[in-house]
Amino acid sequence: MRGDTNVKKLLAEAEKPKELAMKYHPVYRGKIEIEPKVPIKKLEDLAMWYTPGVAEPCMAIKRDNDAVFEYTGKWNFVAIVSDGTRVLGLGNIGPLAGLPVMEGKALIFKYFGGVDAFPICLDTKNAEDIIRAVKWLTPTFGGINLEDIEKPKCYYILEKLREELNIPVWHDDQQGTALVTLAGLLNALKIVGKKPGEVKVAMIGAGAANISIAKYIMKAGVKSGNIIMADSNSILSKERVDVEKNDPAKWEICEKTNVEGKVGGIPEALEDSDVCIAYSKAVPGTIKKEWISKMAGDAIVFAGANPLPEIWPWDAKEAGAKIVATGRSDFPNQINNSIGFPAVFRGTLDVMAKKITDEMCIAAAYAIANYAEKKGINEEYIIPTMKEMGVFVEEAVAVGMKGMEQGVARRKMSRQSLRLAVSSTLKRSQRVTKTLMKENLILPLSYYGKQ
Amino acid sequence: MRGDTNVKKLLAEAEKPKELAMKYHPVYRGKIEIEPKVPIKKLEDLAMWYTPGVAEPCMAIKRDNDAVFEYTGKWNFVAIVSDGTRVLGLGNIGPLAGLPVMEGKALIFKYFGGVDAFPICLDTKNAEDIIRAVKWLTPTFGGINLEDIEKPKCYYILEKLREELNIPVWHDDQQGTALVTLAGLLNALKIVGKKPGEVKVAMIGAGAANISIAKYIMKAGVKSGNIIMADSNSILSKERVDVEKNDPAKWEICEKTNVEGKVGGIPEALEDSDVCIAYSKAVPGTIKKEWISKMAGDAIVFAGANPLPEIWPWDAKEAGAKIVATGRSDFPNQINNSIGFPAVFRGTLDVMAKKITDEMCIAAAYAIANYAEKKGINEEYIIPTMKEMGVFVEEAVAVGMKGMEQGVARRKMSRQSLRLAVSSTLKRSQRVTKTLMKENLILPLSYYGKQ
Repeated sequence: MRGDTNVKKLLAEAEKPKELAMKYHPVYRGKIEIEPKVPIKKLEDLAMWYTPGVAEPCMAIKRDNDAVFEYTGKWNFVAIVSDGTRVLGLGNIGPLAGLPVMEGKALIFKYFGGVDAFPICLDTKNAEDIIRAVKWLTPTFGGINLEDIEKPKCYYILEKLREELNIPVWHDDQQGTALVTLAGLLNALKIVGKKPGEVKVAMIGAGAANISIAKYIMKAGVKSGNIIMADSNSILSKERVDVEKNDPAKWEICEKTNVEGKVGGIPEALEDSDVCIAYSKAVPGTIKKEWISKMAGDAIVFAGANPLPEIWPWDAKEAGAKIVATGRSDFPNQINNSIGFPAVFRGTLDVMAKKITDEMCIAAAYAIANYAEKKGINEEYIIPTMKEMGVFVEEAVAVGMKGMEQGVARRKMSRQSLRLAVSSTLKRSQRVTKTLMKENLILPLSYYGKQ
Repeated sequence: MRGDTNVKKLLAEAEKPKELAMKYHPVYRGKIEIEPKVPIKKLEDLAMWYTPGVAEPCMAIKRDNDAVFEYTGKWNFVAIVSDGTRVLGLGNIGPLAGLPVMEGKALIFKYFGGVDAFPICLDTKNAEDIIRAVKWLTPTFGGINLEDIEKPKCYYILEKLREELNIPVWHDDQQGTALVTLAGLLNALKIVGKKPGEVKVAMIGAGAANISIAKYIMKAGVKSGNIIMADSNSILSKERVDVEKNDPAKWEICEKTNVEGKVGGIPEALEDSDVCIAYSKAVPGTIKKEWISKMAGDAIVFAGANPLPEIWPWDAKEAGAKIVATGRSDFPNQINNSIGFPAVFRGTLDVMAKKITDEMCIAAAYAIANYAEKKGINEEYIIPTMKEMGVFVEEAVAVGMKGMEQGVARRKMSRQSLRLAVSSTLKRSQRVTKTLMKENLILPLSYYGKQ
């Protein structure tokens, strides 16, 4: 797969989901709906689900607030909170324009994680207001998924809410991307026979994704001094005083990494490195072939920008890369957040954890990596795809077990019970959609004319 | 049906839903869930519902904000917003303890109205904060249902939000109760052969319900001077200067009603009146038999307190009342909000109205009354029950048509198309739950042991 014709074909291929999206979004008018999950056999049943019977569970919760996790759906409700300031690669398009993404995310939350997630698009961009809004919303929700909020305020909002709420708060563009990338990296290193403690990692781009990835790969054994991160200006180091005042999270990277004191830009960062992790511009050529060719032997390249990677996989391979991963589903080794968040929340919610710790995320990364390893990893298979439903179960169980081990879980259970709970929830979730499709309660695409 | 034994039996009967509620709330753990409503046939479909395809509908909405009603579920999403300060008859139990009610309400919204309503229980009791929170939430929602918020702030919040938002805002304890009561009253008056313009109406209780009912019955022809409202102190009149500063909505009643300048309490209010509308204390005996006997001939008594009416129906009848209505499903003539809000929202959302005007609510009241009249009204059937699904269709159509007529609808359609849209949505809604029950994706109560 290479050459100009191929690029054209790929670009055309990448247009197809857009066309389908524009065709089918207006006929389905939304991707999720609210449905009763209790039986309504006769109208008299409503007297227990609503007034007058419902008064009793209300009073039970008033007496003991924790009972809300038993008597309501709070335990499984997640708010997908966005202000629409950094939606996909589209930038600050606002909360209304961000809604189709948040609904899509809710769809994936349910189908792959059995999680009842609801989009909350906020009409404010002020960090303190977003924090205030989320705090006001907490009675309904068992978890908060921050999404597509611009940096640097996203770090502050996450940190503040994690501190102050007693339900888990997560920013998918930070923890989600980081854990899935770590999973891929762990397996890629096994294939080339290198250990995390030995490798030099060049990180291209210094946004929320790469800053979180840096944290996670350090926790997994990569030496902080062996990380060289470059933003669009130059390599980060203590010389970069411009960063100090504007972006504390990035400044931490300046202080901790680049022990050699490398200077220069992307090419210098890449020189002699074992691994390249790029989350920067969705423009092929942002990373050039000749720079990859100056990496160490058996180089590993993660070109994470979406929808177009920083370098085409065939170019990276031709320049000597042994393993290439991207964000695209039409190339091997897709680094895909959707392999992470549904299961991380499933495990977290099933043990009613008060937070999602970094250790729980890292446990998820190892579970993903191990799942693929057992099936047999190779240069073109370092990470499972979404078709491998088994990985979601392993991941959720690993997250829940870690939560219990760390004492952040409200509920204790055996690994076996947790696995049973997780897998029956996931099975039911997909069966519901399949059943509604079978009964034409969700109409097929073909109903609206052929594609 | 009368006497002490009967009362004991009724009280015991009223306990049963509570017992069932406590048994089944903890096994179902929530009453609603989020489900995909688009087909997911192969994983590749996700590329149109989520990234990368979803970027196109996002950009379409960015270019034209109104497109959000076409490309997302906003058009059918309603937030059930409560701060938990006045939940059922339970008072200020807080937002966590109020969640079971809001979930139950969401259940009824979907099953009877096809509306995707989601509970938003807010952790703030400050009126300005509630207004702020709702404004921040509007990008996701096509409508706001305020619920169980204490007075007098509920009036202010409703008024302010109705003014400032371009989506419909509704407070069920105001408009909902008022329109259903009006529907019952219209038919009761037909049965006794009196006209709205002629009757004297004694209103017992001066809370949100009765104040809204007063407004609506005036719009339906009852003369404001012929209304006598009494609170727990005395009959309202311009003498009641205590009301003026604390409760502007109630003060308006003081100024407009009671042209005769009646003084005294509940008995004096009832004397010679044709209609009694009580929304006060859930204590039988709040209204005494001897007071009812001093009403005009063919008296109509609405004893609306829940779960126990202000006077038992057999006592009211024995004292000479011709028609008695209560809030209970086990007596004839139940005045039940659930007959109102699902259909009012259905009609409003289907025409994408920017508000729910009082005229739309009154159109709903007439639609309810006419539906029952066509079936044949009598002293024990002044209003349909929830088993009569047909009424929801009539009501929704009446509301939508009125919305178009008043120019608040974003979408124009014929009565026939509107009827088709409404009835197919309602049919689908019930079929979904029935299908999931049939397939054991919603397990029967019997699965958890016999009742």
